[in-house]
Amino acid sequence: MPPLADPGRAQAPVALAVRRIGSAHVGGRSASLQGLPARQIVYSPGGPAVDLDPNGQFQIEQMYAQFVQLQKPRAHHPLLLMHGGGMCGVTYETTPDGRSGWQEVFLRAGHDVWIADALERGRASWARSPEFFAGEPVFRPMHEAWELFRIGPPGSWHAHAQQRQPHARTRFPVHAFETFMKQAMPRWTCNDAATASAYGELARLHGPFVLIAHSQGCNFAWAMALAHPQQVRAIVAIEPSGFPQVDDAALAPLRGIPQLMVWGDHLDGHPLWSQLRPRLRAFAQRLRQCGARVDDWDLPGLGVHGNSHMLMMDDNSEDLALRIDRWLADQGLVTQPARP
Amino acid sequence: MPPLADPGRAQAPVALAVRRIGSAHVGGRSASLQGLPARQIVYSPGGPAVDLDPNGQFQIEQMYAQFVQLQKPRAHHPLLLMHGGGMCGVTYETTPDGRSGWQEVFLRAGHDVWIADALERGRASWARSPEFFAGEPVFRPMHEAWELFRIGPPGSWHAHAQQRQPHARTRFPVHAFETFMKQAMPRWTCNDAATASAYGELARLHGPFVLIAHSQGCNFAWAMALAHPQQVRAIVAIEPSGFPQVDDAALAPLRGIPQLMVWGDHLDGHPLWSQLRPRLRAFAQRLRQCGARVDDWDLPGLGVHGNSHMLMMDDNSEDLALRIDRWLADQGLVTQPARP
Repeated sequence: MPPLADPGRAQAPVALAVRRIGSAHVGGRSASLQGLPARQIVYSPGGPAVDLDPNGQFQIEQMYAQFVQLQKPRAHHPLLLMHGGGMCGVTYETTPDGRSGWQEVFLRAGHDVWIADALERGRASWARSPEFFAGEPVFRPMHEAWELFRIGPPGSWHAHAQQRQPHARTRFPVHAFETFMKQAMPRWTCNDAATASAYGELARLHGPFVLIAHSQGCNFAWAMALAHPQQVRAIVAIEPSGFPQVDDAALAPLRGIPQLMVWGDHLDGHPLWSQLRPRLRAFAQRLRQCGARVDDWDLPGLGVHGNSHMLMMDDNSEDLALRIDRWLADQGLVTQPARP
Repeated sequence: MPPLADPGRAQAPVALAVRRIGSAHVGGRSASLQGLPARQIVYSPGGPAVDLDPNGQFQIEQMYAQFVQLQKPRAHHPLLLMHGGGMCGVTYETTPDGRSGWQEVFLRAGHDVWIADALERGRASWARSPEFFAGEPVFRPMHEAWELFRIGPPGSWHAHAQQRQPHARTRFPVHAFETFMKQAMPRWTCNDAATASAYGELARLHGPFVLIAHSQGCNFAWAMALAHPQQVRAIVAIEPSGFPQVDDAALAPLRGIPQLMVWGDHLDGHPLWSQLRPRLRAFAQRLRQCGARVDDWDLPGLGVHGNSHMLMMDDNSEDLALRIDRWLADQGLVTQPARP
């Protein structure tokens, strides 16, 4: 892992020179509903009742991505920031306690930045369920996030904030946990194939990208690289939770793509993460046997303690971003050194 | 209405000098569910099944807003762009056919720009229904949007794009109608009070703002101004569809806030819009009787023909934004002239 960057650098009050800012919806398809009953509805106070026929054509299974392009990027390819399960692209914006998010930190480091809202959440929108999205939406309760994201150890949740017991010296901004949970998104478990398809369309239309993916998003990052290897120039997997279920021969297209896994603290004592990390490290070993470079940062082993699953919101989030920037530069993807 | 701005101006390849970019969630509350059955779920392919207890505490009824702040804004207050019903803040980003959205156009004209995703949609997320959001979500079919947004006249919809009959010389980018519909959001009809409350919190924490609101969003703009008159410095109501149901005396706080209504084409022949505009103009007259300045731009009457309900996506969207910028300057809210 590269040495610590100067933590004061990205705080410099230098304006970002932005060339273009905007967004796009990609992927998805047109689909029809028939046979549902019509009804009347008032859309705005003071407005008249109008007939609503719920049948018709709809756009479904699309995704959303916003972009900020710099006038003179230092990075050779734009970053695509891919959120995890039950979340959306807000993961990478301002932290819940109001510090610069990775979006702004990586812009200041000279990267064009795209942020995705994957299918079914955030600005990607969602489709009628169960007619289009099978099953039912799953809402993550706060106590599950508290333990799954390793803010506190199993059993440490309490409904009253003052009585919760976070990990000692956690780097997560615990006082902003409620604010963080305002970002939570319902999810379905039926949309993985459509999500991978929409991400593939994003890569095809707007790549090549360097991917920074989080948790469930890492599965889609590897799927994108398998489907469009020329459109993916690196994968930074932040606490990956899954990977494509393909055989070793199918992994060959990934051999030229540098990859990095980053792990926070307190995984070994956790009932799920203690199972997940060995599986992901076995996947990394298979990638290496194909010829890929796959680095692995166990942050506590490198002397950085207290990171939660939400590394990009922890109190050392900017330092971690700048370490990742340095790693990308080491792979030849960014001009050295970072601009002041 | 001010004269036409130079349409080539905002195309100049001058970088935006951006000071800060990010977002915030505001408003909402903590709420609990009990008594629902637990079940098992696999979150990512390759991951183990884990128990999901759907009961617990949740954050509900919050909203989202993203911001881009300029190094040296020309406007005295940030703009807050408020979307309409069944949509989210993407309304104001890149147009469906790929031109700069009002977000970028107003940034180039020297305004800090905030964009809201109101409660229940986009990055605001949504809460379990019907437990928290009463009733059921409403999904707008494409044929309804085609007619309600006046892309084509009543009866002109056809499932096959080639056989749809838009208004002659419509300014909406008809070939991108399917892409536009990827932005559509499900909505409930039970959340108006909570939405107004969250917008009020946004005004209180991050205002004062100049509001540009669209359609259903105008109702929330006026509600925000009634609740926090010191936090609202102007209201630009783009094709408003409703207004707060209060008596004349309650409108007094709005007397010092300059207001503008903007209307596109083809309203008189439309079954809903032909009813709505007279109601809104009667509301404007009540505001004037309180002493407020309320201007009214009927675009066809001013020689600008062919605008749809989605003015900010029509082919003259940039010109309309610059006319609004000029109107804001005339109200003393922007330093003259616009920066090149």
